Amino acid sequence: MASALAKKLIPLGDRVLVKRVVPQTKTASGIFIPESAAKKEIEGEVISVGPGLVTRDGNKIQMTVAPGDKVLLPEYGGHTIDIGGQEYQLFRNDDILGKFSN
Amino acid sequence: MASALAKKLIPLGDRVLVKRVVPQTKTASGIFIPESAAKKEIEGEVISVGPGLVTRDGNKIQMTVAPGDKVLLPEYGGHTIDIGGQEYQLFRNDDILGKFSN
Amino acid sequence: MASALAKKLIPLGDRVLVKRVVPQTKTASGIFIPESAAKKEIEGEVISVGPGLVTRDGNKIQMTVAPGDKVLLPEYGGHTIDIGGQEYQLFRNDDILGKFSN
Amino acid sequence: MASALAKKLIPLGDRVLVKRVVPQTKTASGIFIPESAAKKEIEGEVISVGPGLVTRDGNKIQMTVAPGDKVLLPEYGGHTIDIGGQEYQLFRNDDILGKFSN
Amino acid sequence: MASALAKKLIPLGDRVLVKRVVPQTKTASGIFIPESAAKKEIEGEVISVGPGLVTRDGNKIQMTVAPGDKVLLPEYGGHTIDIGGQEYQLFRNDDILGKFSN
Amino acid sequence: MASALAKKLIPLGDRVLVKRVVPQTKTASGIFIPESAAKKEIEGEVISVGPGLVTRDGNKIQMTVAPGDKVLLPEYGGHTIDIGGQEYQLFRNDDILGKFSN
Amino acid sequence: MASALAKKLIPLGDRVLVKRVVPQTKTASGIFIPESAAKKEIEGEVISVGPGLVTRDGNKIQMTVAPGDKVLLPEYGGHTIDIGGQEYQLFRNDDILGKFSN
Repeated sequence: MASALAKKLIPLGDRVLVKRVVPQTKTASGIFIPESAAKKEIEGEVISVGPGLVTRDGNKIQMTVAPGDKVLLPEYGGHTIDIGGQEYQLFRNDDILGKFSN
Repeated sequence: MASALAKKLIPLGDRVLVKRVVPQTKTASGIFIPESAAKKEIEGEVISVGPGLVTRDGNKIQMTVAPGDKVLLPEYGGHTIDIGGQEYQLFRNDDILGKFSN
Repeated sequence: MASALAKKLIPLGDRVLVKRVVPQTKTASGIFIPESAAKKEIEGEVISVGPGLVTRDGNKIQMTVAPGDKVLLPEYGGHTIDIGGQEYQLFRNDDILGKFSN
Repeated sequence: MASALAKKLIPLGDRVLVKRVVPQTKTASGIFIPESAAKKEIEGEVISVGPGLVTRDGNKIQMTVAPGDKVLLPEYGGHTIDIGGQEYQLFRNDDILGKFSN
Repeated sequence: MASALAKKLIPLGDRVLVKRVVPQTKTASGIFIPESAAKKEIEGEVISVGPGLVTRDGNKIQMTVAPGDKVLLPEYGGHTIDIGGQEYQLFRNDDILGKFSN
Repeated sequence: MASALAKKLIPLGDRVLVKRVVPQTKTASGIFIPESAAKKEIEGEVISVGPGLVTRDGNKIQMTVAPGDKVLLPEYGGHTIDIGGQEYQLFRNDDILGKFSN
Repeated sequence: MASALAKKLIPLGDRVLVKRVVPQTKTASGIFIPESAAKKEIEGEVISVGPGLVTRDGNKIQMTVAPGDKVLLPEYGGHTIDIGGQEYQLFRNDDILGKFSN
């Protein structure tokens, strides 16, 4: 969940504001088991997205993620920022590896 | 075989989700002989593929592999991720060396 | 607030003249709390902007920030200059991470 | 000569599957003299070729070598793979230096 | 002020011939105060400019500075040359940070 | 003079097969004086040329040298190969510095 | 002045054959004063020029210097060659900094 302040940030270009979350796995019986705390959080939730990259020919490249999407993030990279005491990250759209369907 | 969780991951752009498998060879008489365990697993099975890269001109480059394909992977590179306790890898379509015909 | 001298500087191409400011956070009750002085100032105010980059095809890429915008800046990079005893920075438009809505 | 397994591999993009061979030279009188064993094998035979690179504009670049071609390979580079106990290499079409006419 | 010899030099492409000058600041009351001599001279005057870069498509990119312009220069970079005993610098148009309005 | 084997090699793309030769200079009176043996051989004779580079748009770039041309070669670079016991080199057309008129 | 041999060299692409010369300065009264011998010769005379670079689209980029032009050369770079015992240099057209008007 993003703070009110984070929600006021509009990413520029093809940037995506995400919040890393601790991934949870579901057993066959439906019980949620939190991953080992030692594991790197590579899952995130999209808070807001930029308008998309405008290419040198004037074309706008459509964004492929939207606010609320659960996404798979690379372990390293991205731009870590602190907004109102909470840690967020900005990634280029193309650096996001995948998204999870519901 | 991919876990239910892995199947929920939709790769973005031209990314391909693969699972490395131990390659098997077949003798002339049809008997399968597993390769030496010491050998690096460079064969994989495609679990899911992204929609394809959208170029700066708005063209979408068609993917050249599909779920279920047996593919030849480079020894190094790719993005290793852990989904539900199983190891998978994400490759760019263009980094996949070849596919095996049946 | 920019000095009169800084206001006379017209950035070239897609450059943006900014002044880093100490970010403030507002509590639910509306009280402003200055961030810890130790924190790196990554917020800035846009003083002036260039006309935009002219591409090799003769297209002009529109600027996505305007004077007065509150922007999120990368921690490093940019071009630090001293105008009339005050420190400013010049960034390429594309290097600015985001802007804050009012 | 390629193994049955190697023949099942379809290179992707502009890749070429080759097998390095020991070059032979023919004297004026027609007698074949194998090159010194110490010499690096830079000659190869094309086993199979990819469909060709699809450019960002959707154009397909035609392959300039075909299965059966005797080609001149760079000493280093290429992707060495082991298929059924035999060593093969994958090169990008553009990295192949030349081909020998019959 | 440029020497007669420097004036005979026609920069090629998108190059700009500049002469670094010691910046002066004006107080509110209009008194000029020379900056500390220790400060790096990052202000310059444009002496002459090239015709502009011709792109690979045959388009000519218009120059954005003109002779006589007071410009803001990067601290490092550029090509230092000695013409008739005076030091000048050649910059690519795009490397010039900004210009000062009168 | 190229061996029969070298003549069978067809360079691919924009490659040029050359044989370095010891340059000779002619005095005003027409006497040939071989350059010092210590000097690096930077002159060569073109043996064969590729069909030309096909660009990503499908255009073929015309070759600017032809078999028999005396060319000026860069001291380093190129791809040295041994064909039938003789040393040859493969250069990209664009890396050849110039050619000598007769 | 170029030797007869140097004149026989036709630069390829956008290359320019130049001969570095010791720059001379003229005083207000018209007396020529040779620069200190210690100074690096950065002035040159164009001996011959290539036909111009052909771009990947088939466009030819016009050369911006011509034989006989007095040009300003970068201190380093270029390709030094020895023709008939005299030292010349080959530069790409775009690397030449400027030319001197008469």
